[in-house]
Amino acid sequence: MQKVFKMTTPATFDPLTLTFNEAGLIPAIAQDADSNEVLMMAWMNADAIRKTLQTGRVTYWSRSRQSFWIKGESSGHVQELVDFRVDCDRDCLLVIVRQTGPACHTNRRSCFYTAVRDGDETELMSPMI
Amino acid sequence: MQKVFKMTTPATFDPLTLTFNEAGLIPAIAQDADSNEVLMMAWMNADAIRKTLQTGRVTYWSRSRQSFWIKGESSGHVQELVDFRVDCDRDCLLVIVRQTGPACHTNRRSCFYTAVRDGDETELMSPMI
Repeated sequence: MQKVFKMTTPATFDPLTLTFNEAGLIPAIAQDADSNEVLMMAWMNADAIRKTLQTGRVTYWSRSRQSFWIKGESSGHVQELVDFRVDCDRDCLLVIVRQTGPACHTNRRSCFYTAVRDGDETELMSPMI
Repeated sequence: MQKVFKMTTPATFDPLTLTFNEAGLIPAIAQDADSNEVLMMAWMNADAIRKTLQTGRVTYWSRSRQSFWIKGESSGHVQELVDFRVDCDRDCLLVIVRQTGPACHTNRRSCFYTAVRDGDETELMSPMI
């Protein structure tokens, strides 16, 4: 009797099971794996998700430049993917990352450095040196 | 000489200084003040922001119902506002909250309970009892 070999293929997550907006984008929140700080929010399309999962380097879609945005490619402030999460409605992502340097283009650790308290805006952190 | 009294009015944050999308909405990420967990992401319009700041009860705009969504109003799973943050581009909000019960409509603490690991989806948390 001929031996039957069962071929096993590695599981592959299909980004098209997610819900994208009318521009084909989904919001992605980046959270620091060590400090738990929320660092930034940006957008991904299906291909940016594939690249992020394949390379382990967080890759967004730049709406202003209409191109992939491999976070830190020019600045060196890369985001190494630690965990990739999907929300209950499958229309928002949470990427847990190891952030090199500041996440914000203003050179601050997080983009959320402004608090609104008693009707006034307060700056919570300074740019990193 | 007549005495001049200087009237001081309390500072008031103007939501219209923020950048809203074409539907008049801005994404708002809710993070737990104690555990630092990212709980959910939903949307606010200018009036939902005003209500959130005035009442201290986090209020979103429900896109499906096209109405205010005072989080927890029917379920009791309210979000008490601890801090209100704006990002560098003023097009995303981070609300730090004290969450009563689960934040997710599936009864889980956070909406981000699914991880994608090695191409497979894994459930990270069970519904709360």
